[in-house]
Amino acid sequence: MEIDHVGIAVQDLAAALVRWTPLLGPPTGPPEVVPSNRVRVSFLESGASHVELLEPLDPDSPVSKFLAQRGEGIHHLAFRVADVDRALGEVIARGGSVVDRIGRPGARGRRVGFAHPRAFGGVLVEFVEVP
Amino acid sequence: MEIDHVGIAVQDLAAALVRWTPLLGPPTGPPEVVPSNRVRVSFLESGASHVELLEPLDPDSPVSKFLAQRGEGIHHLAFRVADVDRALGEVIARGGSVVDRIGRPGARGRRVGFAHPRAFGGVLVEFVEVP
Repeated sequence: MEIDHVGIAVQDLAAALVRWTPLLGPPTGPPEVVPSNRVRVSFLESGASHVELLEPLDPDSPVSKFLAQRGEGIHHLAFRVADVDRALGEVIARGGSVVDRIGRPGARGRRVGFAHPRAFGGVLVEFVEVP
Repeated sequence: MEIDHVGIAVQDLAAALVRWTPLLGPPTGPPEVVPSNRVRVSFLESGASHVELLEPLDPDSPVSKFLAQRGEGIHHLAFRVADVDRALGEVIARGGSVVDRIGRPGARGRRVGFAHPRAFGGVLVEFVEVP
């Protein structure tokens, strides 16, 4: 299972881009709002994977809670799958907790779903459906 | 710059392997001790990248301090570079802090070096030299 991207929680997207573009180059496009997570994101190419910078839109965003508790840093690890519902179902079948029981719309027009950090020892795992 | 691996801090390597092998398959080899960081690590293949599971050898390991402060979770993000000294030098030249000013021996017989989390907004970045 390939790494699709590594998600990084930031306070300010513009400031974060100043830090990361020397390593990874400019973002793949303009920032995108992901309404379901109340975030604005930018993707930076990193070989076959990406780094995703996530800035919360408002205090209700899960990323705001993460920033308040832990500060800026790596937020989640996303893997590419052919079928996001199946990937989530397999976590449930192994007795793992999930945030999403089935996929939902995510960034870049893709279906995504999150397992619960309890399922992977504190790591928030996202599955991204890439047909 | 490609993602070489994502490092995950774990309390117990054997327990962590039970969680991760259903996603990524078995580790690439037996666990390896990295004396400079006081850790025992396993690598699991993930496309062109790897997931590295890090278990501290003793309370003096930086991973022990991470686990005590934040619990199990994603510990660092490693990028593949042709020249680790140059990558660290470029961080310093941009005014960023580093843990290592030049490369040192890391896992898998490779030269590695860490920037300071301050240089990348709370993200501990490692450079791995892959000639």
